[in-house]
Amino acid sequence: MALIDDILDLAATPAHLLPQNAMVKARFSLLDWMTCGLSGLDEPVAQKIRAFAENEGGANQATTFGGILAPARLAALVNGTTAHALDFDDTHFAHVGHLSVGIFPAAMAMGEALDAPLRDVIAAFLLGAEAAIRIGVQLGAGHYNLGFHQTATAGAFGATVAVGRLMGLSHAQMRQALGLCSTRASGLKSQFGTMGKPLNAGLAASNGVECAQWAALGITSADDGLHGPQGFFSTHHASPDSEAPLRDGFLFEDNLYKLYACCHGTHAMIEGLLSLGVPFDQVAHIELRTNPRWLAVCDKKSPRTGLEVKFSYGWLAGMALRGDDLGDRGVYTDALCDDEALAQFARNVHVSGDNTQTDLQAAGNVLMKDGTSLPFHHDLAAPMPAEVLRAKLTAKATSLLQAQGAALWALEDQLTDLTAADFWKHAAL
Amino acid sequence: MALIDDILDLAATPAHLLPQNAMVKARFSLLDWMTCGLSGLDEPVAQKIRAFAENEGGANQATTFGGILAPARLAALVNGTTAHALDFDDTHFAHVGHLSVGIFPAAMAMGEALDAPLRDVIAAFLLGAEAAIRIGVQLGAGHYNLGFHQTATAGAFGATVAVGRLMGLSHAQMRQALGLCSTRASGLKSQFGTMGKPLNAGLAASNGVECAQWAALGITSADDGLHGPQGFFSTHHASPDSEAPLRDGFLFEDNLYKLYACCHGTHAMIEGLLSLGVPFDQVAHIELRTNPRWLAVCDKKSPRTGLEVKFSYGWLAGMALRGDDLGDRGVYTDALCDDEALAQFARNVHVSGDNTQTDLQAAGNVLMKDGTSLPFHHDLAAPMPAEVLRAKLTAKATSLLQAQGAALWALEDQLTDLTAADFWKHAAL
Repeated sequence: MALIDDILDLAATPAHLLPQNAMVKARFSLLDWMTCGLSGLDEPVAQKIRAFAENEGGANQATTFGGILAPARLAALVNGTTAHALDFDDTHFAHVGHLSVGIFPAAMAMGEALDAPLRDVIAAFLLGAEAAIRIGVQLGAGHYNLGFHQTATAGAFGATVAVGRLMGLSHAQMRQALGLCSTRASGLKSQFGTMGKPLNAGLAASNGVECAQWAALGITSADDGLHGPQGFFSTHHASPDSEAPLRDGFLFEDNLYKLYACCHGTHAMIEGLLSLGVPFDQVAHIELRTNPRWLAVCDKKSPRTGLEVKFSYGWLAGMALRGDDLGDRGVYTDALCDDEALAQFARNVHVSGDNTQTDLQAAGNVLMKDGTSLPFHHDLAAPMPAEVLRAKLTAKATSLLQAQGAALWALEDQLTDLTAADFWKHAAL
Repeated sequence: MALIDDILDLAATPAHLLPQNAMVKARFSLLDWMTCGLSGLDEPVAQKIRAFAENEGGANQATTFGGILAPARLAALVNGTTAHALDFDDTHFAHVGHLSVGIFPAAMAMGEALDAPLRDVIAAFLLGAEAAIRIGVQLGAGHYNLGFHQTATAGAFGATVAVGRLMGLSHAQMRQALGLCSTRASGLKSQFGTMGKPLNAGLAASNGVECAQWAALGITSADDGLHGPQGFFSTHHASPDSEAPLRDGFLFEDNLYKLYACCHGTHAMIEGLLSLGVPFDQVAHIELRTNPRWLAVCDKKSPRTGLEVKFSYGWLAGMALRGDDLGDRGVYTDALCDDEALAQFARNVHVSGDNTQTDLQAAGNVLMKDGTSLPFHHDLAAPMPAEVLRAKLTAKATSLLQAQGAALWALEDQLTDLTAADFWKHAAL
């Protein structure tokens, strides 16, 4: 089946056929997206994009982080940018990108504009995210490695699907919306390290709102924007990985959540060490094996700033075992670099590259001062029971937002009774 | 010099150093853009994009074709789309695209928002257009042939330069604006034949307004969005033509204007025949030589609709010589296909491919009934005196808009005394 037809069928999936496991994760993504957005709203890029929206003004259709009302398109731009400002949001590794920050701002903005029930917004997000994953997987490593940012590119198509679903676009209109997205979607990895990176998430979201609205107005486009002649795939270096996941069901179930405010490459080690539960001061030596790609990224031997601590296996191993709250972005201070206990601990952490570990895995041994050797291993891709993940995400929200974060996660059971507008009132105010 | 530095230097050119020939053509482009926009405002895509803008609303910063006030970004989107709806606007062949429809909407919208003198808007357009040409030439045939639409892609950078110039961005801010444009610009040729094509012009214009505004707010980006790592060029199949024009001065001086509402591939023939000034009923036979690429495009032997007449050398040759107004888009009726005099004339027009003709040239002979043989040749790239071009563009505007078109061109001498807002009042109302 042509990808465009697969996506169009997907977009029309009846709500009662959506897999329950995926819907649970979609709710988690909503709450985690809200957590990241509320936590990021004072970041410089978030303030600037709000100033842009305030200058532009327009119909009061949808709420932004920071409490502006704006047209749906503009709210999507602000909220995607704001929620990605801390880079603390969810990741789907096969998609190669971040799903909630590109798609929930679009779905929420249109949901609020239409006064839709939140359950429809969540279903629309799930279908948009699944569309973005399938498109992202097919764009593949070639697209990413050459310089495109799937969060923005595949994400725009996902946002288009989510918004189009909420607007009730017909099959033919959704096809036109995807065709329009093929000429609208953009986003480069050259923005990494600048405010352009979070902006890319906002672009995905706002492009999705526009393309669905344009199609609803009857603006015509290419018949197959993805694989048609001069379509998005042939122009944007699509090169699907031969090992691309192909299976029944929703790839969205593999979505991963960032639980610690440090480099993702250190998270498997942190989980492995925490699972041992050994006391910091009883550890003599740690031997860690990790995918070689991470050695150049997060093995800072002598961090000089709090930011560099986020990329230091040695420091983070010590912090994890002594109980520092690694989900609290305020914990990564410059003063940590002068913490003699951590520095001494880090000297006893030995890191080596190991091609048998995927980039989501870590393995090793902890040698205790009493001579006991404790092997550990963690795979971030391994399924995590929903209740465990819920507890970890609630802890993350509480670290970031204190009581507001706990109250946000307490809403989980009521989400299906709320409208999109209600949710903003309960969560953000 | 790196292209980015060339563009940044260009953007800072003092107004008094702008070449006068280029400034004359920039004024022509303004009036021709206004002609195309006023003529296109009832086209379906124009009505739809206005409806989109009315739904969104916002600050009353800038005027659109059709008389809405909207934020500058949104006015640029509406006016780019509207002015390209008829595909009757100017073309720069080395740039591979249309300049006025992507750049004037952006410059005019920001000029009006800032209450700038129209002369500053025209200068900003000229510099933006020159930037778009230099970027378009360097993106080259590879970019275009693979499926990108320079009108939209290089056009967005040009619009960014024009708007940034009007906003008084510093050198460093303009660099950031171009970096933001590298992650924002998009536009595919797969939209040709759909409303997505004129929309691409609107996207160029609105992207330019956004990127300049974002940079002014301090949103950061890649240092060299064009040729930096994972920049626009390496990701978007840049492949400059080895014969790309490189010369001192402004390439904008080569800008061409569409004078007849039919396929551009027929225009050299039309000019050549008109230069002979022979009477229609005295012609026995015409032998026409044209670049072979056009044979598949505009040699319809038996057009069945008014649209097909626009792609028929034979019909158009007859219409030109009998004095039909080929600049009037209303002249191309279906009834022409049943015009026996034209059908008979067309049977005596013999067309052949000739590789010695560029795609801007045509040559041939007209054999008169009295036995006289009259050779003709025309090169659309040959310089045309400004007064000749002015007369032709005024005739075009008058055909399209009657008295309003004539009044518009009568404004030419006063343009430098007006503000951007004044110009809308005089031209459009």
